[in-house]
Amino acid sequence: TPESARMEGAVVIAEGVAEPANHSPQPPEKMLLLQDKNPWKPWPRARSRVTGCLRWAQAVLGVPKLLDWYCLCALGVITALISFFMDSTVLKLIDAHRWLFRAVGSSAVLQYLCWTLYPIALTTFSTSFTQSLCPQSAGSGAPEVKTILSGVMLEGYLTLTHLAAKVVGMTCTLAAGSTIFLGKVGPFVHVSCMVGSFLDRVRSSIRGTSEKDLHSDMLVAGAAVAMASCFGCPISGVLFSVEVMSSHYSVRNYCRAFFAAVSGAVMFRLLAVFSSEQVTIMAMFKTRYQVEFPFDLPEMFFFAILGLLCGAICCAYLFLHRWLVTFTRTSAITSRILATDKALYSGLVALLLASMTFPHGIGQFMGSRMNMRELLNSLFDGRRLGALCSNSSVPRPEEVDPEYLWLEWCHPRVPVYGTLGIFLVMKFWMLLLATTMPMPAGYFMPVVIYGAAIGRFVGEVVAYLFPEGMQSEGILSPINPGGYSLAGAAAFSGAVTHTLSPALLVFEMTGQIAHVLPVVLATLISNALCRRYQPSFYDGIIILRKLPYLPQVLKSHPELRAVRVEQAMRLEPKALARSGRLAEVRSALASCQDPEFPVVDTHETLVLLGSVCRSELVRFLHLHAEEPGLDRELWEVCSIQPITFQLSNKTTIQQAHTAFLLLGLNLLYVTEGGRLTGLMSRAEMKKAIEDMATGKISAQP
Amino acid sequence: TPESARMEGAVVIAEGVAEPANHSPQPPEKMLLLQDKNPWKPWPRARSRVTGCLRWAQAVLGVPKLLDWYCLCALGVITALISFFMDSTVLKLIDAHRWLFRAVGSSAVLQYLCWTLYPIALTTFSTSFTQSLCPQSAGSGAPEVKTILSGVMLEGYLTLTHLAAKVVGMTCTLAAGSTIFLGKVGPFVHVSCMVGSFLDRVRSSIRGTSEKDLHSDMLVAGAAVAMASCFGCPISGVLFSVEVMSSHYSVRNYCRAFFAAVSGAVMFRLLAVFSSEQVTIMAMFKTRYQVEFPFDLPEMFFFAILGLLCGAICCAYLFLHRWLVTFTRTSAITSRILATDKALYSGLVALLLASMTFPHGIGQFMGSRMNMRELLNSLFDGRRLGALCSNSSVPRPEEVDPEYLWLEWCHPRVPVYGTLGIFLVMKFWMLLLATTMPMPAGYFMPVVIYGAAIGRFVGEVVAYLFPEGMQSEGILSPINPGGYSLAGAAAFSGAVTHTLSPALLVFEMTGQIAHVLPVVLATLISNALCRRYQPSFYDGIIILRKLPYLPQVLKSHPELRAVRVEQAMRLEPKALARSGRLAEVRSALASCQDPEFPVVDTHETLVLLGSVCRSELVRFLHLHAEEPGLDRELWEVCSIQPITFQLSNKTTIQQAHTAFLLLGLNLLYVTEGGRLTGLMSRAEMKKAIEDMATGKISAQP
Repeated sequence: TPESARMEGAVVIAEGVAEPANHSPQPPEKMLLLQDKNPWKPWPRARSRVTGCLRWAQAVLGVPKLLDWYCLCALGVITALISFFMDSTVLKLIDAHRWLFRAVGSSAVLQYLCWTLYPIALTTFSTSFTQSLCPQSAGSGAPEVKTILSGVMLEGYLTLTHLAAKVVGMTCTLAAGSTIFLGKVGPFVHVSCMVGSFLDRVRSSIRGTSEKDLHSDMLVAGAAVAMASCFGCPISGVLFSVEVMSSHYSVRNYCRAFFAAVSGAVMFRLLAVFSSEQVTIMAMFKTRYQVEFPFDLPEMFFFAILGLLCGAICCAYLFLHRWLVTFTRTSAITSRILATDKALYSGLVALLLASMTFPHGIGQFMGSRMNMRELLNSLFDGRRLGALCSNSSVPRPEEVDPEYLWLEWCHPRVPVYGTLGIFLVMKFWMLLLATTMPMPAGYFMPVVIYGAAIGRFVGEVVAYLFPEGMQSEGILSPINPGGYSLAGAAAFSGAVTHTLSPALLVFEMTGQIAHVLPVVLATLISNALCRRYQPSFYDGIIILRKLPYLPQVLKSHPELRAVRVEQAMRLEPKALARSGRLAEVRSALASCQDPEFPVVDTHETLVLLGSVCRSELVRFLHLHAEEPGLDRELWEVCSIQPITFQLSNKTTIQQAHTAFLLLGLNLLYVTEGGRLTGLMSRAEMKKAIEDMATGKISAQP
Repeated sequence: TPESARMEGAVVIAEGVAEPANHSPQPPEKMLLLQDKNPWKPWPRARSRVTGCLRWAQAVLGVPKLLDWYCLCALGVITALISFFMDSTVLKLIDAHRWLFRAVGSSAVLQYLCWTLYPIALTTFSTSFTQSLCPQSAGSGAPEVKTILSGVMLEGYLTLTHLAAKVVGMTCTLAAGSTIFLGKVGPFVHVSCMVGSFLDRVRSSIRGTSEKDLHSDMLVAGAAVAMASCFGCPISGVLFSVEVMSSHYSVRNYCRAFFAAVSGAVMFRLLAVFSSEQVTIMAMFKTRYQVEFPFDLPEMFFFAILGLLCGAICCAYLFLHRWLVTFTRTSAITSRILATDKALYSGLVALLLASMTFPHGIGQFMGSRMNMRELLNSLFDGRRLGALCSNSSVPRPEEVDPEYLWLEWCHPRVPVYGTLGIFLVMKFWMLLLATTMPMPAGYFMPVVIYGAAIGRFVGEVVAYLFPEGMQSEGILSPINPGGYSLAGAAAFSGAVTHTLSPALLVFEMTGQIAHVLPVVLATLISNALCRRYQPSFYDGIIILRKLPYLPQVLKSHPELRAVRVEQAMRLEPKALARSGRLAEVRSALASCQDPEFPVVDTHETLVLLGSVCRSELVRFLHLHAEEPGLDRELWEVCSIQPITFQLSNKTTIQQAHTAFLLLGLNLLYVTEGGRLTGLMSRAEMKKAIEDMATGKISAQP
């Protein structure tokens, strides 16, 4: 019954790690999987044998009890598989591009064409494919996940079509490599949530419950799994899943998210070993910093400066991003292109970006031959690039050599500070431009790399200023610019997304954690600066797309905090009198599709007594159909459930939203002095938030 | 007004990072600190100058706006200072003991007396001091913090007397060293929460608000700061603060806890540098594992085995702990000693433990000369103890040598597997016995060391079985038993406390994170095993002490989930009629001290219309006192606040508790068909939980 479901919702929230399976009204024997309702199906013996096997397997595996955990493990494993195979496909496509670039010989025109046409083709395909299959799949997806986790379901955002569009589109986007400079984390948060919602449906069907509502545990675990299966970082994935929640994190989900994230991370790293990419389970961007004396005390000052710098650049980045997106929408030329032919827009942007990064042009000064992973590896290097480049006489190899990535930053005419500076200046506007392309793409990885470059630049400058280290207490310890690179990556990406989990992420990615205090310090400083002046990247997209995300709506229009339930509730809900008879019940069932109806004293006084669920009313009708002479009143036949929580007209939307979210409710009745005045369901709540975002509802004085 | 305070509570919960300062009803000029109410105070000019300076300082520092963050920083810094000075005092006391032991010469009797009397004196003092000052301060304190964070205030647990008792008692307990084998994390969680609640009061007084209720942000930050300032591990501190919450973690507290934890960790490590304990900011238990090839893939299997082993030992440990505590309470001899003279009991236990660890007795086989920190350092060593001991011909030095800690595990007649085994067997019951001593002590650190010893034992055995490594793909990589030690420490301590944050803690403690996946795997496995069969150490104490902690009450008596509000609410609350006059208001104010009163239609119908706060009623009285002829009705003078949330009689206690906790409410009215039937405040809630725990309230059919 809805009432018991509502109560169960609250119970599940409060009891921490209890299994909802225990509350399941159906015994395990009645599971949908094993039901045999259609006797006309062929091969009854074979089917019964399969059914028997399945039942045996379920009993052996302890399915009803451990089903949740199997689903969480499957979530991790499936997401890791998608991630790994996407990565290897992308790597093959990038290798193909490199081979092609080498094969066209030394003709500059052919090389230019090869360099530019390949990403143009990929991004154009990605754009047109996703736009035709599922236009909503363009962009990151993380803001949509945030909105869904805040309790407002967005239609069509968790379907398998969307998943397919996202995976194919993202593969093409990533295969365009560091030319386009986009990543995969954001869309992967979305992908793993889609896998999670699919597994949630599977779980419901195995349990035999036909609940329409999504359980948030799978989505929260999905958010954690994304990080884990992109970089093999389970703990920062869990921290990210805490941060992505708008107000409260259910501690019950913590263990589940941890388990799913570890499953994903182990699978992802195991696949890397089995595919001979690595010899054993290791960090993805392994570093070899010295552990004896990681950094000197006075360097904390420079780490703090780096945090401030990252915060300032991040503010500019976020402001310009919102400005640019608005500009492309309003400018006559771009808006026309984007309206009629999005693929053309992507192609044009890709042409511009590829021309800029052409390795015989400006690209030679900004390490453009490396792919995203090589870029990050080269920036996290523990040695001083400045010293390496000035001492080395090795020319840059024909192709990128994984052992000598640092050579890509050396140029015979420009010092390494120059190449890093050019990289920072050029990539700033190029990244902004790339984020306007209407295709599935992540904006986290590029931000990590950009931050690492800021940190590397600062680190190289510090190392140049103190070539022999700070020499505290007479110990000669050279500066490690790699540490600055870590701090910059964490601080910049943390500031852009308003999260602190990147501080842990960089350690899990590199496998060394000696710099923990300077990195968290820099991340905190950059976060503080950026939170003060700009909404996060995700919140910016929520604002631009006008998603129904209440926290953001209230942050941008604080006066809407005073909006009351009476402005948005459904007025005069269909109520049944306690002494209602057949005609009233029949008309109520015919007139609306609600799963439950309020029961009032009389239609005149409208004093709310309780609620009755639809199935009880149907039973009432059946009873009267069986015995035509019967004339019972409603309360004599149906069980009237008490109302657990009631609102008043003056309760604010925000308070009602909190109640929906935290108490796990789907429906709240509004009374005034005992008299029923309206009701508020999730649908009304979603509409209210949308109306508040578009200004249809405004605060009354 | 209470209503606005209630609404503000919900607002603060929902809006994430908003500053409660903005909602403060008082302007900043009215701050209590600067108020000048007592004109008879001496030196008016000096005071006004000081006041001016303070006002200037407040303006410069941006106090009203940033006050929260200053308080959080102060929380971290103060806790780190306490922690550091406690550590250095303890180290000095341990050094004094060592000096004494050396000074008494080679007489075995004198040595024995010196070895045993010192810890006996310390533990006896610790017990009698804390029992006389504040008897509740015995034990860990973490379970009490969990209870307080679940919304039930325990009287006398957050006072400064308690803080003093805890700090002095704990210093003595720790100074008894590895003989008594107790730690400081648990009490430090409590200490930092006490500091947090003190700073919360300071903040309220600076703001000029006189709120009696504690804000949970400082307590949650306190829980995070404890880990950070004991080991310098900020991120695992934050994770621990998530885990310590019973149901929901407010994401608003996340950033605050992070900030406070980083402040604490930076301060704690800076103090270590400034006191010349370390040359720069480094991990507390620095390791030097090789980063090239941390572990081989097949070793994952042994890590999983280790997780299982830790989980199994942990189940035995937790069961025996509860059994032993119950035994000491019920056994005729111990219960009499514990009732009359707790210090005697502590002394007797200390005598037994010290006799067992005497370095010329059994102690020589179990590394008893090392203190807690040296023990952990020796267990985390990256080299093979088995190989070191069998190849070395160096005799054990006269005193513990920090460079050759591994020698403490070598014995001429017993192989290292033997000494580790003896350590594991002996420390198991000794630790159990030590936990029954009635003095402030932490049980986390000993568990970490014990787990590290389990891991080291398994690691040494694996290294013995595969002396040249697993040799996957022809790479010769010797087994690193230190990795197993990490995994064991995380898995065992995680299982004992039912948390996963130790998996991150060991990395932050050692400064290396290459073993992340095996360690989280082992921790997950041991946690799963232990959660299945035993309540956590903290929950065990909650059960033994019958603390009013609802989640645990419901876990041990699931039938109590059906207990309804009507069984515990205050019946027939003092209600005022809407048209009530002077006499009624006067009698209401005289008869009860509630901060707000429900307003009903008439005293016959009792239809709840709203609530009116005490100050409004006082205003009503004043108005009538000023104009004696006046005869107004209640609604004409007082503003009647609407009721935001209402319960029904049938709402369960659990649902009401969730509403209290998550919606930040202090008072809920219960109605039935619009008619006021009762009210439920935090006091009733606490009493209800206590009655449920003691069986006074039982579930009705």
